[in-house]
Amino acid sequence: MTDTTSESANSRTTSRRSLLAMGGAGLVVGAAAAGGAVAVTRSGDEPQPVADTGGAVAFHGAHQAGIATGVQDRLHFAAFDVKTDDRDEFVQLLKDWTKAAARMTEGRVIGDGAYGGLPEAPPDDTGEALGLKPSRLTLTIGFGPSLFEKFGLADKRPEALVDLPKFPGDNLDKARSDGDLCIQACADDPQIAVHAIRNLARIGFGKVAVRWSQLGFGKTSSTTPDAQTPRNLFGFKDGTRNIAGTEREALDQHVWAGAGDGPAWMTGGSYLVARRIRMNIETWDRTSLSEQEDVFGRDKGEGAPVGKAKEHDAVFLKALKPTSHVRLAHPDSNGGIRILRRGYSFTDGTDGLGRLDAGLFFLAYQRDVRKGFIPLQRSLSRHDALNEYIQHVGSAVFAVPPGVRDSGDWWGRALFSKEA
Amino acid sequence: MTDTTSESANSRTTSRRSLLAMGGAGLVVGAAAAGGAVAVTRSGDEPQPVADTGGAVAFHGAHQAGIATGVQDRLHFAAFDVKTDDRDEFVQLLKDWTKAAARMTEGRVIGDGAYGGLPEAPPDDTGEALGLKPSRLTLTIGFGPSLFEKFGLADKRPEALVDLPKFPGDNLDKARSDGDLCIQACADDPQIAVHAIRNLARIGFGKVAVRWSQLGFGKTSSTTPDAQTPRNLFGFKDGTRNIAGTEREALDQHVWAGAGDGPAWMTGGSYLVARRIRMNIETWDRTSLSEQEDVFGRDKGEGAPVGKAKEHDAVFLKALKPTSHVRLAHPDSNGGIRILRRGYSFTDGTDGLGRLDAGLFFLAYQRDVRKGFIPLQRSLSRHDALNEYIQHVGSAVFAVPPGVRDSGDWWGRALFSKEA
Repeated sequence: MTDTTSESANSRTTSRRSLLAMGGAGLVVGAAAAGGAVAVTRSGDEPQPVADTGGAVAFHGAHQAGIATGVQDRLHFAAFDVKTDDRDEFVQLLKDWTKAAARMTEGRVIGDGAYGGLPEAPPDDTGEALGLKPSRLTLTIGFGPSLFEKFGLADKRPEALVDLPKFPGDNLDKARSDGDLCIQACADDPQIAVHAIRNLARIGFGKVAVRWSQLGFGKTSSTTPDAQTPRNLFGFKDGTRNIAGTEREALDQHVWAGAGDGPAWMTGGSYLVARRIRMNIETWDRTSLSEQEDVFGRDKGEGAPVGKAKEHDAVFLKALKPTSHVRLAHPDSNGGIRILRRGYSFTDGTDGLGRLDAGLFFLAYQRDVRKGFIPLQRSLSRHDALNEYIQHVGSAVFAVPPGVRDSGDWWGRALFSKEA
Repeated sequence: MTDTTSESANSRTTSRRSLLAMGGAGLVVGAAAAGGAVAVTRSGDEPQPVADTGGAVAFHGAHQAGIATGVQDRLHFAAFDVKTDDRDEFVQLLKDWTKAAARMTEGRVIGDGAYGGLPEAPPDDTGEALGLKPSRLTLTIGFGPSLFEKFGLADKRPEALVDLPKFPGDNLDKARSDGDLCIQACADDPQIAVHAIRNLARIGFGKVAVRWSQLGFGKTSSTTPDAQTPRNLFGFKDGTRNIAGTEREALDQHVWAGAGDGPAWMTGGSYLVARRIRMNIETWDRTSLSEQEDVFGRDKGEGAPVGKAKEHDAVFLKALKPTSHVRLAHPDSNGGIRILRRGYSFTDGTDGLGRLDAGLFFLAYQRDVRKGFIPLQRSLSRHDALNEYIQHVGSAVFAVPPGVRDSGDWWGRALFSKEA
């Protein structure tokens, strides 16, 4: 599960443009590089070095990329509803999507004929990523509870994929919640992430329809100096105790579904909780610094826990107010619960009252939602002082299957096989 | 007007964080750099070198930065309505904004005491940009027609600041149109642009309110190989004939308001037209490649005009269909009209029908709206084949005053002075 296969790829110097100039031939990635080479690592391993935004993240592997992968700068997340009741047609879509996703991840156009052999055909690829680098694009699929009511999948639904309970303070908008399936696109270039979702939606036309979508921006290694936790829109460092993609033991213990955890088709997969958390920016901004620091349990400048000097100093929980976010979210306050957070900030313009529609699009991966997000959020939703300034307005949960093993495999193959 | 004052600044190596560590002292930019130095150039001159996203763009100069400045990757644009009828209070806001804008542009926190001397005061700065680089932030203010109905400014309104006529096909949403004033924030890091608008809105609380706002992403030098025009969301290169920030004669002829053009307070300023152009992505994506290329009058892969080999080859207008976008928008079809376009792509999630709410947030600067956007759009709105796939859904126009000369000057000083 942790084999690393590095291969020389020409992703640094070969853009979609030059691939195109090669005549749209099928298998040019891996060809001799004209200049510097970038290692393509199998997904599920260490995060990629991120200084070179041209880098490609491998699509194939034991786990889907986009979970343990080092967080990219930008997100386009889409939830879809299935519109076909034809199982074969849906399976074909999953195969087509997988093929397109693999190509886009490598920085290639979709379809062998696009702009090459068949100029009169409707374009296989919408083209706005031509000339751009792979930008560490990852595409990660998940299956929502409602999918298992279709296609005779009812007995395949994992027990760990529970419907989330209603938490105190939830104010969920159905139009921004749920979905039969989801695709998370992450990349260092927003145009690459948007291009990927848009082309997958286009390929799915008539079979699936976008239910809701969310763009997000992060502040990761390309924008934040090394080893600093990015700041959220409240100006605080949050998520200092996140599981890193390099913590293999923690990943196996807290993130990846194990062989005995549930149905075999989910082994090596994970469970994703997505929550759109609106942050009441204007209210927060009129709160005093000391109140803000009490709410989080950290100082704002350095991010150190109360009574400590540095961000990564161990937290002395009893020094923090019982309602402080850091204390309530700490594993020691939650029987050791850890989740892998991969959230992004969002700013979606202005609401009808002239306030920023901004916040955190929270994405958390875990081995079992019942032992991860649910108990954590039960505690936070009841006690966290931060609740005065935030509101959960969207919610969804998905079973994220394991990785696509090779070019003959496809998203959801084990789920849709007769024997699994 | 074209003096260049380069000074050694430590923007590459000194982040907001280390400035903070210097104790929030007043004038640290320009201090000795610990490592490589980045030239800070007066605004209104050549675009900055853009490889280093840590670079700071000078705030002071003959023209406001953010017009001729090399286009940054990200946009946060906000239109505000004035809520106070107290002229002195509004003038004080403009002064406060100017001071904050200058500091943020340099990558510094707002307020000398923030996180430094006055920990119990409400934060002067919301803090989410702490530790981030200046990221070529520019902040550009504009005054809308409705502002001139307030504060006794009626006789100061420039004739060139006309209300835009209704064009064929316009489907304008009032909630995304107009505004007493606007601020355009551009930066290579979205968190920097969002932080700037949010803090200016915070400073303006009670005096102004955000009327509408728009986020955008571009594809500029950091994401697009040199000398290639970025692609729009239809996958085409558009804007090949744009005025570059280095074309001083063209800027003087087409962009900057001259001394005899109108009121003295606008000399060195410009006029901004902002249009939210929704692109019907799904319809476009089901159109054949040949139809798409006919609509634009370019080939999709290279971006060359019909009958030519390369993107920058001269257009032979008669080879293009009379309804093609390139032909209609070409200066030779419009009596030599040129505008400086600075638009950004946007994707604002999904509309109620599952379609991407995506398109182009068109921003164009010109010397006189009556001789720039209006005649151009009169022609395009009537004849452009592209109109089948796009719709203008938001619109605003602003007078953009000249640059802030020095630390004693402020946004709009000449407009609000008794003698101007």
